[in-house]
Amino acid sequence: MIEDPQITLAHGNGGRYMRELIEGIFARHLCNPALDLGLDAAPLDLGHALQPCITTDAFTVQPLEFPGGDIGSLAVNGTVNDLAVSGATPRFLTLNAIIEEGLATATLERIVQSLAAAARVASVCVVAGDTKVVPRGQGGGLYLVTTGVGLRDPACRLGLREIRAGDVVLVSGPVGDHGVAVMLARGEFDLQGAVRSDCMAVTPLTAPIAGLAGLRFMRDPTRGGLATVAHEIVAATGLDLRLWEARIPMREAVRSCCEILGYEPLYLACEGRVVAVASPEAAPRILATWRATPGGEAAAAIGVLGEGAGRVVLETELGGERVLEELEDDPLPRIC
Amino acid sequence: MIEDPQITLAHGNGGRYMRELIEGIFARHLCNPALDLGLDAAPLDLGHALQPCITTDAFTVQPLEFPGGDIGSLAVNGTVNDLAVSGATPRFLTLNAIIEEGLATATLERIVQSLAAAARVASVCVVAGDTKVVPRGQGGGLYLVTTGVGLRDPACRLGLREIRAGDVVLVSGPVGDHGVAVMLARGEFDLQGAVRSDCMAVTPLTAPIAGLAGLRFMRDPTRGGLATVAHEIVAATGLDLRLWEARIPMREAVRSCCEILGYEPLYLACEGRVVAVASPEAAPRILATWRATPGGEAAAAIGVLGEGAGRVVLETELGGERVLEELEDDPLPRIC
Repeated sequence: MIEDPQITLAHGNGGRYMRELIEGIFARHLCNPALDLGLDAAPLDLGHALQPCITTDAFTVQPLEFPGGDIGSLAVNGTVNDLAVSGATPRFLTLNAIIEEGLATATLERIVQSLAAAARVASVCVVAGDTKVVPRGQGGGLYLVTTGVGLRDPACRLGLREIRAGDVVLVSGPVGDHGVAVMLARGEFDLQGAVRSDCMAVTPLTAPIAGLAGLRFMRDPTRGGLATVAHEIVAATGLDLRLWEARIPMREAVRSCCEILGYEPLYLACEGRVVAVASPEAAPRILATWRATPGGEAAAAIGVLGEGAGRVVLETELGGERVLEELEDDPLPRIC
Repeated sequence: MIEDPQITLAHGNGGRYMRELIEGIFARHLCNPALDLGLDAAPLDLGHALQPCITTDAFTVQPLEFPGGDIGSLAVNGTVNDLAVSGATPRFLTLNAIIEEGLATATLERIVQSLAAAARVASVCVVAGDTKVVPRGQGGGLYLVTTGVGLRDPACRLGLREIRAGDVVLVSGPVGDHGVAVMLARGEFDLQGAVRSDCMAVTPLTAPIAGLAGLRFMRDPTRGGLATVAHEIVAATGLDLRLWEARIPMREAVRSCCEILGYEPLYLACEGRVVAVASPEAAPRILATWRATPGGEAAAAIGVLGEGAGRVVLETELGGERVLEELEDDPLPRIC
């Protein structure tokens, strides 16, 4: 424990206070055999048969805590999920905390505790880290950065270039929960809602299907939501993606909240969902696997790829269709 | 190139503007075969005979640009050096940029260009990255985080626990240049000075000696300076470290600047120096190697470890001695 009720600039200075911060909060919660505070660089025990992969992400969500998660669990799951959708088994994380002077020490401790719990659930070790403290007013409370290393079967061939006309697009669960949960937690709107973030590690959804023949591509629809993943797919392939609006799983609370505020829910971030592209033969098997896995119960086939002009076309519930444009204005900044 | 003269929140939203930011600035300067923007996680080609190591660091220096470097070159060299002093050959970097709304696009571009140049000099590839934009007033202009992966001979045995009584402490060059250069660049003091940051990759200094028998430990004296490395050594070993003040290389401009402002230069950050602990037999060879290497010309033996009470004792130039305490108050926040 550190005694000061608030983080001060002295906690970032490389001296005694910083050591107390690191030992009293970070090391205490993140302690594992691979984390040695006396090392400048941590050795990675990767084995030899598998392909190491690396990914990194910064987290600046506001507020720091929200129903269903906080910036700590988000920082673990966001990076774990980038590895998982790449077909890798997440193994190691590094962590950077950029802390604003004046942050309540108790808040920091709750968040690091939540981060440590999320790392245990996701079976990843935090092996290296770094803290900085920035002056009051220059840090939004806390920014976290995590970098993840995972291992992948070298035979795994997932990627945008594997996608073919006729492939089906799947999503593992309802979209937009994280975006709406964080938005409501800000308290800027006079709206009540029982929406919790979907923040979770998707490894249980991705690991059983990563080697499946006919699986072409996976992505976690975070910033920019499902619509942004759809645009990545059509930009890379030149195909048209037709999305069936009625089949996209979405909670009623998310839908009505977006209607009231005029948001397009397909642009809202998820933090525990997977979008997959698969051959028509492989798709039913993926759906069956997902629906039998916690967090994947509402999985659905939501669209199909065909020859076209690189557009995302939404077939609406009323039988019409419209082109879903690439996101430009930001409906919800600082969602992750 | 991106057209907007300033970064806006829309550059962080996951949509078109963010894509333009990444393609127009980051990818353009950092382009290399291992960096594929379409991947969520980058594969690492590590080979099998060597031990992978990982390290991470956040950079919040103010001002963003200073004589001898900027936050971009610092973010590369800081992380490269943490690998180098661990005895590893730096290979891969990941990069996170947390950008404050309103940052001049031209400034960002200069910094990314400098970062890319530093990566080329240090022979490291940026293989993955991430950008976030935070609202005006919440980001200090730009924060960078780099995570580095390097490879080390598994037989390499460097560490605080290898240190013995009788070992000698060496430093590769003048201390405090980075701290004073950044301080003067802030323009808060009415002082002129021609001090440039020592920011550089120390790999040319560490690589030739990493396998040398009798080399016990290396560290780059960044935040908290030489004094903080000295305290790490005595805290881990329980030995006394006697530093010979007259032999510690220091530029006259650094010394006089610190005298005027009342700073202890031994607490000031270096960003291109190495502190090494070695047996009395190995020390002369290390010094000879360093003095023949660019950036190591002023290398010196500056102290010796002996039985004691875990203190850092400074033998002053006038023949007296004083105990050098662990850093508490921060003389210069946001130096790296």
